[in-house]
Amino acid sequence: MLCGQKLSPLSFLSLQQLQFASQEEKQEFSKFPTKTGRRSLSRSISQSSTDSYSSAASYTDSSDDETSPREKTQVNSKGSSDFCVKNVKQAEFGRREIEIAEQDMSALISLRKRAQGEKPLAGAKVVGCTHITAQTAVLIETLVALGAQCRWAACNIYSTQNEVAAALAETGVAVFAWKGESEDDFWWCIDRCVNTECWQANMILDDGGDLTHWVYKKYPSVFKKVRGIVEESVTGVHRLYQLSKAGKLCVPAMNVNDSVTKQKFDNLYCCRESILDGLKRTTDVMFGGKQVVVCGYGEVGKGCCTALKALGAIVCVTEIDPICALQACMDGFKVVKLNEVVRQVDMVITCTGNKNVVTREQLDRMKNGCIVCNMGHSNTEIDVASLRTPELTWERVRSQVDHVIWPDGKRVILLAEGRLLNLSCSTVPSFVLSITATTQALALIELYNAPDGRYRQDVYLLPKKMGNTERPALAKQTKRFIFYLLYISKRNT
Amino acid sequence: MLCGQKLSPLSFLSLQQLQFASQEEKQEFSKFPTKTGRRSLSRSISQSSTDSYSSAASYTDSSDDETSPREKTQVNSKGSSDFCVKNVKQAEFGRREIEIAEQDMSALISLRKRAQGEKPLAGAKVVGCTHITAQTAVLIETLVALGAQCRWAACNIYSTQNEVAAALAETGVAVFAWKGESEDDFWWCIDRCVNTECWQANMILDDGGDLTHWVYKKYPSVFKKVRGIVEESVTGVHRLYQLSKAGKLCVPAMNVNDSVTKQKFDNLYCCRESILDGLKRTTDVMFGGKQVVVCGYGEVGKGCCTALKALGAIVCVTEIDPICALQACMDGFKVVKLNEVVRQVDMVITCTGNKNVVTREQLDRMKNGCIVCNMGHSNTEIDVASLRTPELTWERVRSQVDHVIWPDGKRVILLAEGRLLNLSCSTVPSFVLSITATTQALALIELYNAPDGRYRQDVYLLPKKMGNTERPALAKQTKRFIFYLLYISKRNT
Amino acid sequence: MLCGQKLSPLSFLSLQQLQFASQEEKQEFSKFPTKTGRRSLSRSISQSSTDSYSSAASYTDSSDDETSPREKTQVNSKGSSDFCVKNVKQAEFGRREIEIAEQDMSALISLRKRAQGEKPLAGAKVVGCTHITAQTAVLIETLVALGAQCRWAACNIYSTQNEVAAALAETGVAVFAWKGESEDDFWWCIDRCVNTECWQANMILDDGGDLTHWVYKKYPSVFKKVRGIVEESVTGVHRLYQLSKAGKLCVPAMNVNDSVTKQKFDNLYCCRESILDGLKRTTDVMFGGKQVVVCGYGEVGKGCCTALKALGAIVCVTEIDPICALQACMDGFKVVKLNEVVRQVDMVITCTGNKNVVTREQLDRMKNGCIVCNMGHSNTEIDVASLRTPELTWERVRSQVDHVIWPDGKRVILLAEGRLLNLSCSTVPSFVLSITATTQALALIELYNAPDGRYRQDVYLLPKKMGNTERPALAKQTKRFIFYLLYISKRNT
Amino acid sequence: MLCGQKLSPLSFLSLQQLQFASQEEKQEFSKFPTKTGRRSLSRSISQSSTDSYSSAASYTDSSDDETSPREKTQVNSKGSSDFCVKNVKQAEFGRREIEIAEQDMSALISLRKRAQGEKPLAGAKVVGCTHITAQTAVLIETLVALGAQCRWAACNIYSTQNEVAAALAETGVAVFAWKGESEDDFWWCIDRCVNTECWQANMILDDGGDLTHWVYKKYPSVFKKVRGIVEESVTGVHRLYQLSKAGKLCVPAMNVNDSVTKQKFDNLYCCRESILDGLKRTTDVMFGGKQVVVCGYGEVGKGCCTALKALGAIVCVTEIDPICALQACMDGFKVVKLNEVVRQVDMVITCTGNKNVVTREQLDRMKNGCIVCNMGHSNTEIDVASLRTPELTWERVRSQVDHVIWPDGKRVILLAEGRLLNLSCSTVPSFVLSITATTQALALIELYNAPDGRYRQDVYLLPKKMGNTERPALAKQTKRFIFYLLYISKRNT
Repeated sequence: MLCGQKLSPLSFLSLQQLQFASQEEKQEFSKFPTKTGRRSLSRSISQSSTDSYSSAASYTDSSDDETSPREKTQVNSKGSSDFCVKNVKQAEFGRREIEIAEQDMSALISLRKRAQGEKPLAGAKVVGCTHITAQTAVLIETLVALGAQCRWAACNIYSTQNEVAAALAETGVAVFAWKGESEDDFWWCIDRCVNTECWQANMILDDGGDLTHWVYKKYPSVFKKVRGIVEESVTGVHRLYQLSKAGKLCVPAMNVNDSVTKQKFDNLYCCRESILDGLKRTTDVMFGGKQVVVCGYGEVGKGCCTALKALGAIVCVTEIDPICALQACMDGFKVVKLNEVVRQVDMVITCTGNKNVVTREQLDRMKNGCIVCNMGHSNTEIDVASLRTPELTWERVRSQVDHVIWPDGKRVILLAEGRLLNLSCSTVPSFVLSITATTQALALIELYNAPDGRYRQDVYLLPKKMGNTERPALAKQTKRFIFYLLYISKRNT
Repeated sequence: MLCGQKLSPLSFLSLQQLQFASQEEKQEFSKFPTKTGRRSLSRSISQSSTDSYSSAASYTDSSDDETSPREKTQVNSKGSSDFCVKNVKQAEFGRREIEIAEQDMSALISLRKRAQGEKPLAGAKVVGCTHITAQTAVLIETLVALGAQCRWAACNIYSTQNEVAAALAETGVAVFAWKGESEDDFWWCIDRCVNTECWQANMILDDGGDLTHWVYKKYPSVFKKVRGIVEESVTGVHRLYQLSKAGKLCVPAMNVNDSVTKQKFDNLYCCRESILDGLKRTTDVMFGGKQVVVCGYGEVGKGCCTALKALGAIVCVTEIDPICALQACMDGFKVVKLNEVVRQVDMVITCTGNKNVVTREQLDRMKNGCIVCNMGHSNTEIDVASLRTPELTWERVRSQVDHVIWPDGKRVILLAEGRLLNLSCSTVPSFVLSITATTQALALIELYNAPDGRYRQDVYLLPKKMGNTERPALAKQTKRFIFYLLYISKRNT
Repeated sequence: MLCGQKLSPLSFLSLQQLQFASQEEKQEFSKFPTKTGRRSLSRSISQSSTDSYSSAASYTDSSDDETSPREKTQVNSKGSSDFCVKNVKQAEFGRREIEIAEQDMSALISLRKRAQGEKPLAGAKVVGCTHITAQTAVLIETLVALGAQCRWAACNIYSTQNEVAAALAETGVAVFAWKGESEDDFWWCIDRCVNTECWQANMILDDGGDLTHWVYKKYPSVFKKVRGIVEESVTGVHRLYQLSKAGKLCVPAMNVNDSVTKQKFDNLYCCRESILDGLKRTTDVMFGGKQVVVCGYGEVGKGCCTALKALGAIVCVTEIDPICALQACMDGFKVVKLNEVVRQVDMVITCTGNKNVVTREQLDRMKNGCIVCNMGHSNTEIDVASLRTPELTWERVRSQVDHVIWPDGKRVILLAEGRLLNLSCSTVPSFVLSITATTQALALIELYNAPDGRYRQDVYLLPKKMGNTERPALAKQTKRFIFYLLYISKRNT
Repeated sequence: MLCGQKLSPLSFLSLQQLQFASQEEKQEFSKFPTKTGRRSLSRSISQSSTDSYSSAASYTDSSDDETSPREKTQVNSKGSSDFCVKNVKQAEFGRREIEIAEQDMSALISLRKRAQGEKPLAGAKVVGCTHITAQTAVLIETLVALGAQCRWAACNIYSTQNEVAAALAETGVAVFAWKGESEDDFWWCIDRCVNTECWQANMILDDGGDLTHWVYKKYPSVFKKVRGIVEESVTGVHRLYQLSKAGKLCVPAMNVNDSVTKQKFDNLYCCRESILDGLKRTTDVMFGGKQVVVCGYGEVGKGCCTALKALGAIVCVTEIDPICALQACMDGFKVVKLNEVVRQVDMVITCTGNKNVVTREQLDRMKNGCIVCNMGHSNTEIDVASLRTPELTWERVRSQVDHVIWPDGKRVILLAEGRLLNLSCSTVPSFVLSITATTQALALIELYNAPDGRYRQDVYLLPKKMGNTERPALAKQTKRFIFYLLYISKRNT
């Protein structure tokens, strides 16, 4: 296939046929956790939940062009057509979104500025598969600034910001993505990134493992030239460890998901802010003087408790792990059983990661107006199913807000139907995404530049401490990375 | 004029003519502070800024009926037509908004439940003029539950929630208000509340002083039966004190605006939450690690500093008042001059009440991405006018968010064009409105039930302490009121 | 009487006789609040409670010279004998204490450094009567540096640090004071300050009103030359207002006690630290995880709650004032009744200013090991008397710590026998004393330099805000004063 | 040797000779970290630093009996003489100290109450070697209550509270310890615990490894009956791991030092309080408004920063570890280099564990009155040696407080000569000691009751999480233990 050539419907069909060589493979593939459960996707939902604040949203929505991008031939201002997006003419709007995102992604921008002289990715051919948002665009453009060539697909069929994809296409990135892809479209886009005659990837940046999976299944020979895989998601990392265990991992891989910075930011620091944000945006509730019970005192619970206490809420905690319970106690939170307080509290927030932490019986005993929401790791912490019974009336009062009404008129205010509040009703700040993106960039730099023998066919973590003598270069990068992060709190000299 | 009769265009014209007896009167009237400066109005702006979260908004917007409500005759389900709203059929949607508001207005609901047996307002005929929102509806319905008859107009031409007005009309309140009144409409509505043959007001509840002014000018004889005026706004209270000074105040008046609870809630407690809310909704910025300078350490500044510090921002303060500066210092905030830090900070927040606290010169020196916003008392704290020069480009990136771009590409992120962030980009929680509404209700109860001689023709404050032997009844009410407030933090037995 | 001449016992007796002209006067005088109730005195107790940390203490204690200082003639190294202290040879030890105190009295030292060029007190003859501690010495030496001549007596018979008095005497200050004066000694010392032939006071600095009283009674003619009185204590200020009301105040007076800075420091800022300090020094208790009830949420209560919450205690509040209760609630403290929680809590802290806030019945219900202490304004908040019954055993386990033991073995830990913990078991930091001392110095400067007519024969407050056009000079001083205070948090340029 | 028989000087000499079989052994032994570096010892220093608050101290000091306890024969009231203490007649005073300690050791008391029915240590013969303080006495008496027989020696020659040892002896514990033992005495006491005919230890509880070492060298056959060793100190644990590595550990051992609870309490929770306590007791400094730099943001630094920030200090942090630096930043502390701020700050606190973190050059640049202290792990963080030069004058102003005076008069206030502030100038709360003691008790119970095969000849940690299926019994104990800890924050039912 020639570069930039549009794939015919026919050739796609054949791809479809190839897609799963056997029924077993398909089944194996479907063992992947569902996308909806992944944080990554939720981010896009989160993004959409703020559409009303984003000029971008309206452009997308106002687009009444129903033609599939695959049916159209578009050319950017430089004459290239090696991309496939909704409408390349939206590039200007996307550029604006990218510029806004850059404002709070100082770590990445610092990396770009400082390393673009060295071009540590010169010669790198990166094929990527992530959400395509303004923040990702900042990452991609950073990789380009550092010398890389990039081809990119979306890791989720809904999460692409069309204007951003247009802006990337306009500047010459081979991007294949739009909002509202079909499953066929999804794989077609990935294939277009990998399967191109005049270009062969030597680095993979993945979020979810779909791209990696596709290359394994369809183009295993690509791995001969690939120097490494960088993977962000829980799902993808899990898959990599399985491959490694099975002896099938044929290149080194870097696990970004479990880096300390990402964990701390995703949990403690991010939830400390998003619990407030999510509650305000959905309910406009005042925190001062409210009685709140937080179920679970892990990193997420710690973040929620700190923030709510600071704003004048009276917070108590339920916790079964004795060490966490002790920490709650020493941090000044009364440790209780949910049943002891459920009648009195104004809010119940779950952060345990367990199932049915809040039961129907407890929901029955809550007082009128009690707000119930979930900040934990699954949508099963609140037994929402138990509320779908005939005697209870559900009333959708706002987006993400339901009043569940008891026969006596009592209302319990359920947020996001028990799904993750922080992802459904809040946004992930660019700053947090910047942390992960910078980690990804550094991982790419490290794997691409590592001397032979430094990494074997295994899954690696970015070192948590500097001065690791085994991986001095990486350590140095990490040190620099942290320096970039800290940059925000320093003089702009 | 007969009850419920629709005013003819002719009769309105004559009202118009009557409106200002002389040019002087008109001038005097125009001395009223502009409405835009009033908190009350801003609240409606705030409300509208959250339309996207409110189902109510869409109902209003979808209404394509361009007929003036004054042209239509509507009848509620009980057969009454003594009201004038956009569309009484929207009552159901409005009822839902009212029910949502009730969830966080426990003080008012408690008052309703506990006092409805006594009916302390039996016989009271209250004419009111306030914003007509879900929260006001909870107040009006509380007054009705306590025995009052009410007629109501809007104190602002934009702030009426049409569905809520419809819901009130449906239950029999004589409400005259819709969103988007003309100035003629505005006075016509007020007149319809006051000037009705079969009903004469004996209590006035005002927000801004327009109703009071109208009665003074047009129906001075009404004051013979009026037992008192309750006024909420700065503007209206100012006007009452002027009348009192001039010896023209002919009934007792209660100044709700300066009650301790209202002041503390409007400033310290409310701003402590709305600074976070306003920044998140507009910029999604992460607070942790950000360097922030807060200009001014009064109640508003204290609230902002407390909240930002608690979420991990590094906060310093500018303050010229030595006592406030000392408090900032003892509370752990470095006291600086703006010029010393303006190059380094990530956010500048003004809370001084002064003019041009942030100058063009300082804006020139800010770093790229610096967020600038105003939480103070006027829209003049940031010298926004100085930014409207040819060399700077303004880019509206979201609602309420402008990027001001310098020739070198530096962007300063200006929120709400320098107007009040808390009112433009955040919401006032129902809980806070509940405090004021409960205070208003108690003031009405007190004035209506006070024995002759307790109040003279003067402006009074609700006593700040209980056990005031001069006003035992009021003290008791205040005590009870506070009890209602505290009720939220107690067992729901 | 000649300068420096020792008063004969005879002349003193006659003074005694003169002291109270009539029985009525004596009675009037005895209406003065008892000294023990005064903060000022307590400070000396506090000082003594830390003797074990202070090398000074031992010098005093080791002094086995039982001769009354009045019986001895001492001469300092400059040949002067116009003073009367325990032992002028202890001057060196006192100097060290003064130097230590200077370290944390930056406001006063700044004033000294900056104003000593101007000598704003040149010509001032200040007669003073205060506690004579290292901190006061810093004040006196500052006055001298600014140009004043000083004669000084102690305002309390126990509070004088003998070494400090010696150090002052050595440098030439006419100081008459020692630890353990008799009441005769007390008045003799004051008289020696006022009644000296070659020197007539033109400024009075008083703490408690005894000096002022003495001058009024004995040397009323002195007031002809006195330009003003500066008074620190509640007692003395009360007395001045009475004189003013009765039309008997013949010079302007400055009320330092009610200055904002003093009030905030004595209550909120000071108690925020001394509650922790007092509890640690007496009980070594760990705060983290402890359940605490604080009775009263005024400034003292706010300080205690803030500190304990910050260190991980779980704090609830009792409060009868509804406004304060509401503040507690909005600050995140559960408002309870003492009876509801008395069985569970680990500590009970009173800060109400009321009587019998903690009753015997409540003490009976406390759990084993419960700590009970008082931070309020009197020693009557805890009904200690009720614990002195035969069935209870008292065991003094440490200085200021009693175990009260119930028949079943339960122990309640009572601190300072219910007296003020912050004064009995903690210290007042030099920094706080520096605030008051600087205020006193500024008040002296202002009164001494004010043009005729600025102050009448009335009691004045230092203005709380700058730019007071009526008193520009004072405002400027205040501004400067605060600047000195803030100096501590600024660059040392 | 018969039980209770006093060892003759002669037999001791032979012990001495036996003590080190060879020079090598002696050298090996001397590789043990010096005791002074051990936390355990410091605790005794800390204890002694608070003697002035403790009635106990005076009894000890007033004792002018210079006879060595080994020279005297004492008999307790039950007729036993199987102990050797300073003066058994001081038992009553010691009992009081023990009772005071019990008040804040609820975890241990709960364990005693709940488990004394089961007698889980029935048959256990525990030989122990720890500091002998009131808190240890509570542990020993708990072991006895649970069924154990105990023989006890001191692990430090200075740390024994003589009255407490007397109280233990009086109740029948075979205790051999006094304050001010010689090194000979030290080993003699240990030997008397182990080497007794009618009793053979089956459990060892050690703090520092001296007892274990002695048994290894002298009575290796004892290990045939010993079921396990419980060791608390860093030193002792280090030694055990060495033995294990060398294949010489012949019984299971439990490492209490690295248990999560101990680590968190020793560092974060304890330092959060002791930084305030230590600074107050030594300097009476006010925290509000002070500028502080904390060097290092590990657990200790986090504790210090949290506490100081909460009390109104303006805190910045130096940190070279990027992850910790990032945490500081996100927690709201400006990350700086010491050189940038050393001129401005009021306090410098070291918590790094490194050497010469504060250099002479930096000390030269500090401002007058700057307080310098160390909370880290060694006495080398501040380069104190560099201050011992002729041009600087040292002045000891209080116990643990030196003014170091520069030629220009500038004073730097050095605390504890750069040794650990928390140990030198503060106390370790009984509550914290209770945590460790309870852990020790549970470790004894677990090792004593474990079925054969559960533990091999290795070093074990108490599991951090419950429900560990491999060690269910221990997990259950841990769970219960935590329950006891939490007990303090729960109803006393």
